[in-house]
Amino acid sequence: MPASEREKMAAGEWYCCLDNELDRLRQQARLAVHAHNTLPPDERGAAAPALRALFAQAASDIFIEAPFHCSYGMNIVLGERVYFNAGCTILDSGRVTIGDRSMFGPGVQIYCAEHHKDPALRSTGIEIARPVVIGSDVWIGGGAIILGGVTVGQGAIVGAGAVVTKDVPAGATVVGNPARIR
Amino acid sequence: MPASEREKMAAGEWYCCLDNELDRLRQQARLAVHAHNTLPPDERGAAAPALRALFAQAASDIFIEAPFHCSYGMNIVLGERVYFNAGCTILDSGRVTIGDRSMFGPGVQIYCAEHHKDPALRSTGIEIARPVVIGSDVWIGGGAIILGGVTVGQGAIVGAGAVVTKDVPAGATVVGNPARIR
Amino acid sequence: MPASEREKMAAGEWYCCLDNELDRLRQQARLAVHAHNTLPPDERGAAAPALRALFAQAASDIFIEAPFHCSYGMNIVLGERVYFNAGCTILDSGRVTIGDRSMFGPGVQIYCAEHHKDPALRSTGIEIARPVVIGSDVWIGGGAIILGGVTVGQGAIVGAGAVVTKDVPAGATVVGNPARIR
Repeated sequence: MPASEREKMAAGEWYCCLDNELDRLRQQARLAVHAHNTLPPDERGAAAPALRALFAQAASDIFIEAPFHCSYGMNIVLGERVYFNAGCTILDSGRVTIGDRSMFGPGVQIYCAEHHKDPALRSTGIEIARPVVIGSDVWIGGGAIILGGVTVGQGAIVGAGAVVTKDVPAGATVVGNPARIR
Repeated sequence: MPASEREKMAAGEWYCCLDNELDRLRQQARLAVHAHNTLPPDERGAAAPALRALFAQAASDIFIEAPFHCSYGMNIVLGERVYFNAGCTILDSGRVTIGDRSMFGPGVQIYCAEHHKDPALRSTGIEIARPVVIGSDVWIGGGAIILGGVTVGQGAIVGAGAVVTKDVPAGATVVGNPARIR
Repeated sequence: MPASEREKMAAGEWYCCLDNELDRLRQQARLAVHAHNTLPPDERGAAAPALRALFAQAASDIFIEAPFHCSYGMNIVLGERVYFNAGCTILDSGRVTIGDRSMFGPGVQIYCAEHHKDPALRSTGIEIARPVVIGSDVWIGGGAIILGGVTVGQGAIVGAGAVVTKDVPAGATVVGNPARIR
């Protein structure tokens, strides 16, 4: 049997996002995200159960401020004490792995999804998913954008509003659009 | 009879946003936006009816992830299969025309509204509205900002986090702040 | 008695954010922010009473579009006719003073909080708070980010998407990442 679109997505191959199985998974994520974002803070706690249930793996002591958004959730792995401030978005068509004690400012965006560069193919829904790896003890400043395929090394700092298009070495500080080592 | 503020806004002339008719239209948009953003995903569908009703024109197969924000809605024209990912904002004091199959990443911002550069005039509510035209088959990356007066040509790509201050030719790719052709 | 973490935060000294009193204050802010963002627009008015009650000081004629986010609220001082468009975020661990008639586009971010640059200290919750002062009659364009310690002078303009890392003189216009005078 040929690979399903979901299998091609997981394998890092071109796939078509206009697909019943992927549609169903995205709708499941929308429901969980909605639950997290609309629950009163004293009922939501550190992460709404429906949202936590979506993730591939998440330590018990993560904290996700509302609002939060992810496209699937099932590809997100969160280490101990990971903290997302309000308004973070993860398009997790690819695997997104975040190390222990890493902290995200408000409005940080991680985009694994990349549409095809050819407009004709793009219009048919052809995409590719590239993984993102954030090491442990990383600080991602508010409003930063991390593109698919990027690895941010342990202890690094990404400045507020930086647009990270390539790997960040462990311990480095990057700023700007595109982000460069400072 | 002298032109109303709404008529001046539509004509691309300086107008005063502190105006009863414009206030009423903005409040109507707030109600529709609130309906779209708070409806459970399985009741909201591709766009809440109240939001869809606001638009000047919208194809039946658009999809607008929540949350979404627009200031009036009445100046927005959406072609077939236009897709907005979560968190997009359109300040549509001017006409915003978006072509078929164009796709917006999360948190994309379109700002037609421009306040007066003179602080004294600005404080009286004087603004001007400049239209935005996005061609068909365009991909606007997440977190990008499109300023008033800009036209993005057919099939173009705007990189994530780009700040687009001038026209983008058809088929071009622009990145950075301010956005430049790559 | 040694200073509490809250007192150290207010004094501009290094403090630990993992603290019961600060936790309680942040939870109070979450509840007020949630009330503001979920109330129907015709009940919310210009600012939900719970949100207004949080602020150190706020003129009667401010207007805060939903959604809005702040981390404490208690350090925010808003002059007459201050206007926040949708999606603004203020991390007000430090004092944030905003002058009369200043206008904020959508998605503007003000970050007083700064984590420690040393990963080991950062992981223990060590932070410092730097104040932000926005003069009167300022226009902050949508999506701009203002970092802690920054003063924006009277009548200045901050371009959409600018990342403001140092003071902006009165009357100046700054754009870009990092923001520079144009």
